[in-house]
Amino acid sequence: MPSSPVPLPALGLIGFGAFGRLVAAHLAPLFSLRVHDPFAPDSAFAAAGLARCSLAEAAACPVVILATPVSTLAAVVRDVAPHLQPGALVLDVGSVKVRPAQIMRAGLPPGIDIVATHPLFGPQSARDGLRGLKIAVCPVRGDKAGRVGAFLRRALGLTVILTTPEAHDREAAAVQGLTHLIAKVLVAMEPLPTRMTTRSFDLVIQAVGMVRHDAPEVYHAIERENPYAAEVRRRFFDLAAEMDGALEDVETARAPA
Amino acid sequence: MPSSPVPLPALGLIGFGAFGRLVAAHLAPLFSLRVHDPFAPDSAFAAAGLARCSLAEAAACPVVILATPVSTLAAVVRDVAPHLQPGALVLDVGSVKVRPAQIMRAGLPPGIDIVATHPLFGPQSARDGLRGLKIAVCPVRGDKAGRVGAFLRRALGLTVILTTPEAHDREAAAVQGLTHLIAKVLVAMEPLPTRMTTRSFDLVIQAVGMVRHDAPEVYHAIERENPYAAEVRRRFFDLAAEMDGALEDVETARAPA
Repeated sequence: MPSSPVPLPALGLIGFGAFGRLVAAHLAPLFSLRVHDPFAPDSAFAAAGLARCSLAEAAACPVVILATPVSTLAAVVRDVAPHLQPGALVLDVGSVKVRPAQIMRAGLPPGIDIVATHPLFGPQSARDGLRGLKIAVCPVRGDKAGRVGAFLRRALGLTVILTTPEAHDREAAAVQGLTHLIAKVLVAMEPLPTRMTTRSFDLVIQAVGMVRHDAPEVYHAIERENPYAAEVRRRFFDLAAEMDGALEDVETARAPA
Repeated sequence: MPSSPVPLPALGLIGFGAFGRLVAAHLAPLFSLRVHDPFAPDSAFAAAGLARCSLAEAAACPVVILATPVSTLAAVVRDVAPHLQPGALVLDVGSVKVRPAQIMRAGLPPGIDIVATHPLFGPQSARDGLRGLKIAVCPVRGDKAGRVGAFLRRALGLTVILTTPEAHDREAAAVQGLTHLIAKVLVAMEPLPTRMTTRSFDLVIQAVGMVRHDAPEVYHAIERENPYAAEVRRRFFDLAAEMDGALEDVETARAPA
């Protein structure tokens, strides 16, 4: 294919961990990427065919994606802010949305548009492409969320869920909180059977396999940075304890006197 | 298709609940079925195109399948025993194997061959046919387990796992015990999100959907009649409590003084 006569628009990507690399792989054909991550190895840049950029270069693009752990977002926003161009659009991709939206609103200058996103997938679930995978999109400042959603739908084939940080975190607390709790318990019980398995057990194990290699930062964000996660955990553990008690009572009642 | 010149061999089926009906649907083309179940409604017999048989008629067949809840097996074996023909083969289909094998060995006359089986599927997972689904087959008395396995493989397309009741129950305690525990907790937490879901959460919910409508007898057999189930539950609940404690400690450490 001949190179496009129109130069690709520049896009800054701050953070080149597992998720940043997935973003880069899918946006490389559509944007001229400027990637900044002082901690990512040269091999990661070489594998992606990308040059290492300074924070200033990456942050000066018209669109900047922050793909760093939620726990570092406040520091990253502080570092990025002075380099942003007026009218730029900043997006994050964290697993929770209430705190990142607050951090970005508080830390980014007034002229900057902000859209908070949560791609509801990771490198595992995106192995066979992005088509049909879900992404939550929350307008935080400015009016670009609709255009971001349209781009994600048309250019990447994603299913876009337009929502608020609060509504997102409420649902994600159950969806991701429960999946990760169950995965943690089952991984701790390994080795588990692989031969005499049922279809439903196979599905649960497949689900565990999709999240068990998630970066620890993802688990941390889901369980710690989501304001509704503690409540979901509380219900899960209370119901488990209740069921345990009910089964124990019957055991005791059945035991010979 | 013209009716076969050779009459189909007779097969007795004791129990016409959800699983007995699944057995009948798949064996009807290959056997002349004699089904006994005083509690199954006329409509079930009519839907299957089968006549209601007496216990004596069903039990007098050369092959007899006991498809009643594990908790009633001792009573069923006692009732069936006097009607069995010398050299007959009796099979069960319960979700656990140690107790049913003991009950059948103790209650069926010496001349009767016994094979204990556990089809690792139910009406839900068998909706699209039996091919590739798993069945555990345990020889209990006599030498017919190999032929039973070959039949299940060739005629029904099942994947046959030849094992012992003890080895079966050890694996099933984890496979079925965990699936059902997780399903019970998640069903108790409903309504759960359906919109902002991840692929791994969708898989877990699909697994829950496959077991949530299982007869209460199945859950009872899995949690109560499997000698290893209590140990698996203990580990699951202990690990859940441990994780709960670890997360609480951090919460406490983080809380403002």
